[in-house]
Amino acid sequence: MFDSIALPHRLDKDEFVALSEKLREKLLDAQFELQERKQKAILLLINGSDGAGKGEVVNRLYDWLDDHFLETLSYGEPTEEERLRPLEWRYWRDLPAKGRIGLVLGGWHHRPLSKRADGDWDRDAFGTALEEINRAEEMLHQEGVVVVKVWLHVNEEAAQRRLQKLREADGAMRRPTVIEWGEVSGKRLTRLREAALELVEKTSTGHAPWAVVSAEDKRYRDAAVAELLLQALERANAQQTAAAEPPPAAVARSVDLPRASLVSSLDLSQQVDRETYAERLEALQRRLSELTTAKSFSRRALVSVFEGNDAAGKGGAIRRVRAALDPRRFRVDGIAAPSDEELARPYLWRFWRRAPRLGHIEIFDRSWYGRVLVERVEGLCSRDDWMRAYTEINDFERQLTRARIAVVKFWLAISPEEQLRRFEAREAQPTKRYKLTPDDWRNRDKWPAYEEAVNEMIDRTSSRHAPWTLVEADDKRLARLKVLERIVERLEADG
Amino acid sequence: MFDSIALPHRLDKDEFVALSEKLREKLLDAQFELQERKQKAILLLINGSDGAGKGEVVNRLYDWLDDHFLETLSYGEPTEEERLRPLEWRYWRDLPAKGRIGLVLGGWHHRPLSKRADGDWDRDAFGTALEEINRAEEMLHQEGVVVVKVWLHVNEEAAQRRLQKLREADGAMRRPTVIEWGEVSGKRLTRLREAALELVEKTSTGHAPWAVVSAEDKRYRDAAVAELLLQALERANAQQTAAAEPPPAAVARSVDLPRASLVSSLDLSQQVDRETYAERLEALQRRLSELTTAKSFSRRALVSVFEGNDAAGKGGAIRRVRAALDPRRFRVDGIAAPSDEELARPYLWRFWRRAPRLGHIEIFDRSWYGRVLVERVEGLCSRDDWMRAYTEINDFERQLTRARIAVVKFWLAISPEEQLRRFEAREAQPTKRYKLTPDDWRNRDKWPAYEEAVNEMIDRTSSRHAPWTLVEADDKRLARLKVLERIVERLEADG
Repeated sequence: MFDSIALPHRLDKDEFVALSEKLREKLLDAQFELQERKQKAILLLINGSDGAGKGEVVNRLYDWLDDHFLETLSYGEPTEEERLRPLEWRYWRDLPAKGRIGLVLGGWHHRPLSKRADGDWDRDAFGTALEEINRAEEMLHQEGVVVVKVWLHVNEEAAQRRLQKLREADGAMRRPTVIEWGEVSGKRLTRLREAALELVEKTSTGHAPWAVVSAEDKRYRDAAVAELLLQALERANAQQTAAAEPPPAAVARSVDLPRASLVSSLDLSQQVDRETYAERLEALQRRLSELTTAKSFSRRALVSVFEGNDAAGKGGAIRRVRAALDPRRFRVDGIAAPSDEELARPYLWRFWRRAPRLGHIEIFDRSWYGRVLVERVEGLCSRDDWMRAYTEINDFERQLTRARIAVVKFWLAISPEEQLRRFEAREAQPTKRYKLTPDDWRNRDKWPAYEEAVNEMIDRTSSRHAPWTLVEADDKRLARLKVLERIVERLEADG
Repeated sequence: MFDSIALPHRLDKDEFVALSEKLREKLLDAQFELQERKQKAILLLINGSDGAGKGEVVNRLYDWLDDHFLETLSYGEPTEEERLRPLEWRYWRDLPAKGRIGLVLGGWHHRPLSKRADGDWDRDAFGTALEEINRAEEMLHQEGVVVVKVWLHVNEEAAQRRLQKLREADGAMRRPTVIEWGEVSGKRLTRLREAALELVEKTSTGHAPWAVVSAEDKRYRDAAVAELLLQALERANAQQTAAAEPPPAAVARSVDLPRASLVSSLDLSQQVDRETYAERLEALQRRLSELTTAKSFSRRALVSVFEGNDAAGKGGAIRRVRAALDPRRFRVDGIAAPSDEELARPYLWRFWRRAPRLGHIEIFDRSWYGRVLVERVEGLCSRDDWMRAYTEINDFERQLTRARIAVVKFWLAISPEEQLRRFEAREAQPTKRYKLTPDDWRNRDKWPAYEEAVNEMIDRTSSRHAPWTLVEADDKRLARLKVLERIVERLEADG
């Protein structure tokens, strides 16, 4: 989950100045509209490691927003007054009225996380607490309170550096410091990280997903949080005008913060020469054949998902996998438009009906990820629909893996230039021309929207049980070998 | 929870014939409309103890509905085919298309219940499974599949009698019998009951609440299930016409099945004479004073909720409680229309802000139950809103009790005749006339709607941690003593 966080996220000073001008103007407009309508309240929960700069973000938001309709709700150790009341009381006490924005530090996620990291709570007790939080946030959603959840992330080194600075500055009374997490080191740190991941996974709902924001660069951090708040404000205002969800175009990003993207960070220049390829291919196919015909495989199964840019070579890669398999035991599903039968049921139904029996292999050429890719980008479903799909898909894949079906997912990535070359080659070749449709050209124009959707998909569905593998596919040989290697690896690991 | 189930629920033959005529006509109309529109599918999950007659209900529904658009989905031990797939696969495989109705026997709740009753799963593992079910049902709801959940209840004797009969009939091949729960006796039965209650509590959501139906009388049972299905059909059809929730009047019950009601089953003729009253009152007030001024009470608190018919004597009962309390440590909250401040926030906020500190007592003259009483009956909120309120209220009260605040709830019940007498007396007496408003007279006309709301409220919110106490209030002395006794009992138990 959220692997993209490790990428560099920064803004230089000029970029930041230009952006903050824009952000400020739009934030104020949106905030006044919220205040005028008095139909929704916004709670922005700012969480994250110590030293990530939660307080600084709040200060920046005060600069950019109108502080008359803004309040900071900051929670630490319970006060005397709070200790005499139920734990939940202080959050209720401070709930902002409709039309207002609350910036929450140390919110309701803090205690379960802490308990879990300290080892006071086992996984199930932690899960129970998170479910109670989900019910409460669902209730807030239904009652017109928009919950926006941000996790500020810094790597540990950076965090320690900043904490040290804060401590030194403290002596000079520069700023009161709250070290929320206590001494964080070694085992506790590991547990805290694991718990935080679990928290983000289990409490990301359709209406209140977590956003994980890189906080290494302060300018990027502040702009990214402000942008999330702006989006929430604009959605809240739009929902008040129209009863129906506005078309996605209307809530498209109104400020352009550069995205760090896993997909665009790939090195697509790598190549494999012909001889190495032939040799490796044969060895891998032989191994795959062994693994899938072994007796032990009759108690397991494999689902392999192929997604990627148009013309990225999914078909070619699938053929190389298929060639190694017993034809009685695999099926390749090309997923195109759903049938009438399928449209009459929940979108996952068409994939459930294709779930393989034990001992079998199901290969999906495109898949359930259409929901968060094409359906999202083309506006075929609402934001709530594709947002909740991440959780639904994670549940679905967990149910498969729990039943001993390995789920191996590939994103085949090519550069726009390579795609253009391939499109043109297809056009020129009569036997391949059928593969190219006007849709393919149209999709090219939406490259940035697709890239954003792909990146979010990978961040939100690369779960422990079913991680994504990103495949550099400008070189087809390299791509095919990587796909086969990964499948073999996974089957060997499952033993 | 669902205490009303113990009341007699029956229909005589003539009632049944008249009712079934009506049900059949309306069911067919509604079913055809569903089929025409093809926007929603219905899943009716029929669960319950062995011998409750689940199969018979299905047969009856086949008589009353058009079997072209109806299917039975029955699950027992997994077949060979099913064992080779994930557990969830068979339910997905059988999911009916939009426009159709599926009758589900042995649905997805069966396995967790069984595991829990067998002691294979602890409370937390059970909870985790139930949460996964909730997420799946939420997804179905979002995708246009209406889930209706029925639990058929018979007392154990009746169940054993019927099972015996079925076993004997089996020899003659009269009907295939599935004994779902295996040998149910002693410890396992107790655990099964506890688990079933927990299941019903934890998986009753706003859009898919459980209905517990008395199955002692077959005619009543069949009519009640059919009525639930009819309501679901009519709601589904209504939602397709208007985007907004239709006003509650439009989905009012269209068939009149007589209700068994906890409230109307009370014996209101009991009386207490003046001397006994004076003596007991003094003793109880003294004891209450002791309990609430004891040192140990400084680590606890009390919330007492008074609800009841208009003129049932809530004020008088509250005064008798208040008289025993230290004025620095209690507050009486008369709950009338919410303030602007309160309207700008979720409905529970006004009650959370009144949560007592430890060592204190908060008395609510009317309460958060307004949501499921007046707001429901007057159509001030949608069905989804008051349906989800049961869960929200149970969560709220659990959070209070977890913080060592005892929650003691009273429903003061009077007969319509006694209410009329009191209204007339108030009108006649100038000092009391202000207590009577035109609303009171209007509410009298809605007696049956209120009674249904009250009964459902008690059934769904009489939780282990905060049960309701029903108070026979035609005799004011009796009512006041019972209230004091119950509070004293509860504080002594916690002591």
